[in-house]
Amino acid sequence: VGSVASPKEASNVAQGTLNNSFPLQDVLEAQQFDRDLLTLIFDVAREMEDVKRGSPEAQQLSGFLMATLFYEPSTRTRLSFESAMKRLGGEVLTTENAREFSSAAKGETLEDTIRTVEGYSDIIVLRHFESGAAKKAADTANIPVINAGDGPGQHPTQALLDMYTIQRELGHLDNIRVGLVGDLANGRTVRSLAYLLAKYDGVKIYFVAPDVVKMKDDIKDHLTASGVDWEESADLMEVAAKCDVIYQTRIQRERFGDRIDLYNSARGKYIVNSEVMDVLPKHGVVLHPLPRLDEITLEVDSDPRAAYFRQAKNGLYIRMALLKLLLLGY
Amino acid sequence: VGSVASPKEASNVAQGTLNNSFPLQDVLEAQQFDRDLLTLIFDVAREMEDVKRGSPEAQQLSGFLMATLFYEPSTRTRLSFESAMKRLGGEVLTTENAREFSSAAKGETLEDTIRTVEGYSDIIVLRHFESGAAKKAADTANIPVINAGDGPGQHPTQALLDMYTIQRELGHLDNIRVGLVGDLANGRTVRSLAYLLAKYDGVKIYFVAPDVVKMKDDIKDHLTASGVDWEESADLMEVAAKCDVIYQTRIQRERFGDRIDLYNSARGKYIVNSEVMDVLPKHGVVLHPLPRLDEITLEVDSDPRAAYFRQAKNGLYIRMALLKLLLLGY
Amino acid sequence: VGSVASPKEASNVAQGTLNNSFPLQDVLEAQQFDRDLLTLIFDVAREMEDVKRGSPEAQQLSGFLMATLFYEPSTRTRLSFESAMKRLGGEVLTTENAREFSSAAKGETLEDTIRTVEGYSDIIVLRHFESGAAKKAADTANIPVINAGDGPGQHPTQALLDMYTIQRELGHLDNIRVGLVGDLANGRTVRSLAYLLAKYDGVKIYFVAPDVVKMKDDIKDHLTASGVDWEESADLMEVAAKCDVIYQTRIQRERFGDRIDLYNSARGKYIVNSEVMDVLPKHGVVLHPLPRLDEITLEVDSDPRAAYFRQAKNGLYIRMALLKLLLLGY
Repeated sequence: VGSVASPKEASNVAQGTLNNSFPLQDVLEAQQFDRDLLTLIFDVAREMEDVKRGSPEAQQLSGFLMATLFYEPSTRTRLSFESAMKRLGGEVLTTENAREFSSAAKGETLEDTIRTVEGYSDIIVLRHFESGAAKKAADTANIPVINAGDGPGQHPTQALLDMYTIQRELGHLDNIRVGLVGDLANGRTVRSLAYLLAKYDGVKIYFVAPDVVKMKDDIKDHLTASGVDWEESADLMEVAAKCDVIYQTRIQRERFGDRIDLYNSARGKYIVNSEVMDVLPKHGVVLHPLPRLDEITLEVDSDPRAAYFRQAKNGLYIRMALLKLLLLGY
Repeated sequence: VGSVASPKEASNVAQGTLNNSFPLQDVLEAQQFDRDLLTLIFDVAREMEDVKRGSPEAQQLSGFLMATLFYEPSTRTRLSFESAMKRLGGEVLTTENAREFSSAAKGETLEDTIRTVEGYSDIIVLRHFESGAAKKAADTANIPVINAGDGPGQHPTQALLDMYTIQRELGHLDNIRVGLVGDLANGRTVRSLAYLLAKYDGVKIYFVAPDVVKMKDDIKDHLTASGVDWEESADLMEVAAKCDVIYQTRIQRERFGDRIDLYNSARGKYIVNSEVMDVLPKHGVVLHPLPRLDEITLEVDSDPRAAYFRQAKNGLYIRMALLKLLLLGY
Repeated sequence: VGSVASPKEASNVAQGTLNNSFPLQDVLEAQQFDRDLLTLIFDVAREMEDVKRGSPEAQQLSGFLMATLFYEPSTRTRLSFESAMKRLGGEVLTTENAREFSSAAKGETLEDTIRTVEGYSDIIVLRHFESGAAKKAADTANIPVINAGDGPGQHPTQALLDMYTIQRELGHLDNIRVGLVGDLANGRTVRSLAYLLAKYDGVKIYFVAPDVVKMKDDIKDHLTASGVDWEESADLMEVAAKCDVIYQTRIQRERFGDRIDLYNSARGKYIVNSEVMDVLPKHGVVLHPLPRLDEITLEVDSDPRAAYFRQAKNGLYIRMALLKLLLLGY
């Protein structure tokens, strides 16, 4: 990590490099980001909100080609990346279901696929069902790779857009109280979010989860080691009354297998509804990585503190920022 | 319906509005169109036929992004819309099979999906398997929605291109005799066409259908109430000899379930072949919404009055016109 | 075949024609190419390697629309064509799985589908599961058709990129010794390659294949009739020591059905590994149409004579060249 162009970047952005190259060659995991880097990305994302149709800024990535290589479908994430690329004038090669990629089906390794696809594109956005796939792809590729989720592993752009949304909604990331609610055991978004929050000062985290999906010890230990104050609670109302951010998540049925009884008991336990909104501070916000089922009731949608659709939109700005930074620098 | 910009349009076309805004915010059903509106759309469609590669007209929608959200596959309709957008310089986000949209599969509502996708695009083209889905999407979205078919419901752009083709081929829409042939019970295109024809003067409609798929009473009643002369006939030759337009349709096997005997007897009953062409007036035309099986024989294709492939092409111009009108006005 | 524009081309490239029109209207099979035509295509492909982002050359096909109509998935080939089109400023309509094209599923003929799709696009790239489908499409279409593989039939752009790679790597196509290795019975790429090699002087071909997948007599007879020297060998080491090019191919499991014993014995027989590389001449190259399994070991990848990923990249330049030649001439 440094401010000089890496060989990978240099070979790809020779014609378009701005004054400063982005210190990362690839975006693979939340652990790559420190406060300075987050500030840089969020500043660029903020500029992206103001890119106007027909302006030179809307053509910054003209001539660049992004390949979206999705080994499992995730239409939301795919459309968000593709919109980001096109909003900056770039072009896209799409693979909605690369798992049936004829070559993969015939037994080709991911590395060979990457070596082929990098010949056709300038940046690869990879979604894969195996943890570590993005790292493997990045090690192979001579062009930047963005991890758009690798199985139970990482989904770093989601973590970035979550943090960006908190900053946009509250104005700051230090000295905030955040309630993480729902499926804390399986949700990679809450795990990454907790990790990034630990980089800021005066953060207090509340975990509110059904017993079967409690936050795991590794994150708790990391928070403790980082000096972050945290506690577990079984009372969503009490937590909501104290928090700046309630980050609700879906109980993921697909993780319960046949144990539908466990799923059902966990699912209804912590619902963000108008009673919760009544106690949430006026300046507070409710986030959710989406999709949501009924863990946030529809009546909440019209509350100005319901920020989850703004959050989804922020995913566009974060991805525009990352594409620009990886391909052009800043 | 009025000539002032609605909030929905205003927020989206602030930078590109032409002198007049289109009175519709969304295109949802044939019932939205009166004669004036049809004339406006057809005039713009006619201009679209002359858009030249490399001209400023071919860049009118530059910087706009259309999302094609298809919950059931319809490659013909999808490609037609995407071609229309790209012929005007716009860009496209594609979802070929949104039913497997990870979020929909996880139980997300259509409304939530729309709220997300509208953050990534400027206009949504929706194909859905449920009647009323387009209306639901339009009520939610802050950007224009075009219904590209919602189950047994509406497919308004098909109805528009059918009418446009008749006008292009005959030069007028008043005082025409139209034979609607084939599956009149299940075909939403003939139902919408009958509805739109009723807006013109001196129209005479002949229904020629096997008994099991006769035109339903609601359309007959509407025609009668609108003062449109109509009759049923079992003699395609006699009808063809009197008509300006023969609109043939496919007997839809998928509607017959196990009753293959009924399907087979209905399927072969009314075929447009060279004998029918022999009695069709010289200025007459044969239309078909496609795909066709054998209800129009291949020998007919070379007859200049066989207009069904020109009709398919007109779908492009109608969709270019609608995209321009909804995004820019006129 | 001549140098005057055909009606098909003339109608489509009226605004963009260069001085000379390409003698082919469509690219359907390896048999269409003679030495002069190959030289022309390879010269243009060479120019394509130097097309710079942001240059006028990168906008040559601006305003043109390519439809990729794939009746069987082949992501590698599809992305290569789509990248080629976009690298020249053109746009793409994609169908990843046209076999489920609603119209085809309903019984529409390929000809009717082509007549519809040609209304939406300027050139069609067709991948089909039936031999002869590309010819059928080209006979119907009024726009150029490129065969991107039709079942057991032809895959001419692969043959062109193979030849181009040999020329790029060795500097010439006359007086070369080529070892064709692996599945020579089922591999259409080696069959087409043998066919094209026969057009050059002083070519010597070695066939190295397990007994169950030996090269068929038709190609051997054609080579003999063309005056090409060839022989069969069971000793890959001996052949490699004499060759300028080793063209390795995958044993295609899907061709063996239940006979897994036969597949397994064939699969491991001829492997390109470091021992083979040790005897291959210094100027020699190893090619492979990809995907590869273990018929070339990973240790070979770092050898500068391993040209198979450069070969994949050359597919991009060949397809850029063909798109330009068919749409604009030269």
